[in-house]
Amino acid sequence: MKVWPSVPPRDAHAEAAARARQARLTKPSGSLGRLEALSIELAGMRAQAQPCVAAKAVIVMAADHGVTAEGVSAYPSSITGRMVGNFIRGGAAINVLGRAAGCRVVVVDIGVNGPIHMRGTDSGGEEAGPRLVTQRVRSGTANLSRGPAMSRADTEAAITIGTAIVEEEVSRGLDVIATGDMGIGNTTAAAALLSVFSGRPPREVAGPGTGLDPEGVARKVAVIERALSVNRPRSDDPLDVLQRVGGLEIAGLVGVIVRAASLRVPVVIDGFVSGAAALVAVRLVPAVSAYLIAAHRSAEPGHAVMLELLGLEPLLDLRMRLGEGTGAVLALPIVDAAVRLLGEMATFADL
Amino acid sequence: MKVWPSVPPRDAHAEAAARARQARLTKPSGSLGRLEALSIELAGMRAQAQPCVAAKAVIVMAADHGVTAEGVSAYPSSITGRMVGNFIRGGAAINVLGRAAGCRVVVVDIGVNGPIHMRGTDSGGEEAGPRLVTQRVRSGTANLSRGPAMSRADTEAAITIGTAIVEEEVSRGLDVIATGDMGIGNTTAAAALLSVFSGRPPREVAGPGTGLDPEGVARKVAVIERALSVNRPRSDDPLDVLQRVGGLEIAGLVGVIVRAASLRVPVVIDGFVSGAAALVAVRLVPAVSAYLIAAHRSAEPGHAVMLELLGLEPLLDLRMRLGEGTGAVLALPIVDAAVRLLGEMATFADL
Repeated sequence: MKVWPSVPPRDAHAEAAARARQARLTKPSGSLGRLEALSIELAGMRAQAQPCVAAKAVIVMAADHGVTAEGVSAYPSSITGRMVGNFIRGGAAINVLGRAAGCRVVVVDIGVNGPIHMRGTDSGGEEAGPRLVTQRVRSGTANLSRGPAMSRADTEAAITIGTAIVEEEVSRGLDVIATGDMGIGNTTAAAALLSVFSGRPPREVAGPGTGLDPEGVARKVAVIERALSVNRPRSDDPLDVLQRVGGLEIAGLVGVIVRAASLRVPVVIDGFVSGAAALVAVRLVPAVSAYLIAAHRSAEPGHAVMLELLGLEPLLDLRMRLGEGTGAVLALPIVDAAVRLLGEMATFADL
Repeated sequence: MKVWPSVPPRDAHAEAAARARQARLTKPSGSLGRLEALSIELAGMRAQAQPCVAAKAVIVMAADHGVTAEGVSAYPSSITGRMVGNFIRGGAAINVLGRAAGCRVVVVDIGVNGPIHMRGTDSGGEEAGPRLVTQRVRSGTANLSRGPAMSRADTEAAITIGTAIVEEEVSRGLDVIATGDMGIGNTTAAAALLSVFSGRPPREVAGPGTGLDPEGVARKVAVIERALSVNRPRSDDPLDVLQRVGGLEIAGLVGVIVRAASLRVPVVIDGFVSGAAALVAVRLVPAVSAYLIAAHRSAEPGHAVMLELLGLEPLLDLRMRLGEGTGAVLALPIVDAAVRLLGEMATFADL
């Protein structure tokens, strides 16, 4: 990439004003727990003493992974395209949660391999259905256990797509963004990225993903070990790591995260795959970390390592491991509640 | 009480149907974590294979406590009435969260000592403001460290009020109920109840409440020890315990919980004070426990003991300790999400 957008620090004046207001609200100080700190951070991110997070969107990046040829997933690659079709028809978990949370769903085919099954658009019930963006950089990555997953040009193209989507969504009105992913095989790429950035061996960060048995996990660990030995990604060069052992949807989310932060849009990070994108984003532009909110702790074992590395404490811990942005969108009402409490509660002076 | 309402077990057919549907939804089995089990339990509570929890109400029971004369709270008793006024004007945390979650707020003055400050009704912005039910059984309890907090007749009257309010709310349409409390001094009563039912000494279950310093907590522990030694509540007689060391709002919530369960209305339990009411309710009518959902783990240290005794795992853990029902109403979108996912997601056959 030529130049990364500059990411401002959280606004200290807005944070100070929010902190002062929290102290005057009609409750014992500190009694709203994490919601208080969260509201203050959101004030700083938005540079507004009383922020609003009414306009919400989840960006679900979908792509395939050549590494599925190694038997690293409980599901076949063809499920990626089928699930994108499901997203468009409004029948997936992310659609249900989006409707419940008043959150727009934007689905991005950034590298699915094979057709999107669009038949029927009858399920769901959204007034305006999910938006589908078709911007395939390539039809899935190459097999990262045999060589680089992508070229540098493809990696940068995917990041640029993520950047552009954030800009479009902000132009439609956007106060907070949630990240989501769909891609059979992508926990293998995410675990590889985590292994490089954490310095931990693959066996400590790879897990069952969508449902591998212990034998499958062992195979996945061996595949990641091979990928790291074949590719030798340079941990001090985040784009190099992303290109060699990442994925197209992960690269797209890197663009989403960096661009959102640069525009002062808080980013609610979903689980293991979104978290891998956040790791890359923070390595590329460290100031991004001030705009990240960890939605939940995933059931994927390596997620704890990832959250620690990101320095984030998740809002929810419900043993979810679906991806799609489901954990992130489930956490949106909590983010919304935090800022509403700050803005709408009476002060002791009002009593 | 003459007769407790009978509480049916969760409906096994509805649970089996919900479990079978969960297995067909477009996601890896188990990937929605606790939301899956929650949706199945809610199906059983409502006796509907695809339940709906659209109509929501939080019942906030407010009352004063004579034991505040012993200096067991960081705030004076007069705050109880002031906060009830705040609830009516829509300016308290519970109002904000109720509006955000689409949850009716019902405030019950079941034993406040002193006037309710009703001036102004300008803050907030609810279409129909909170409903205030004024049914004072007495103006606060007696000092439970010197004798029984209430008479048996007052205890039963408070329970009956809770029962009647649930019946009224159900007649307005109600799919799920949340419990809330307001009463300066009530964590002392709740800790005393917990001490009796858990068999643990007061020092292991009493905490800072709204913000006591360590010296204050030590004083509170001594007051509870005195209360137990003066009152000698019989742990095998839950009404006796409630009468001697409980409170009017806790008794009201006992009525709410038992009656809701008997009508197959799931009960989302807030924090430490609501949890004490749940403990009493479960001791009175053990079948009630099948209808309880623990909203959150409170920052009050004894709450962990209480949740263990209730056998409940909370949905949230955000270090909140405000009461009012805030934790319960914050958890409602998660409860709602669980049943919507069950009802609205496509199945693999649809793909």
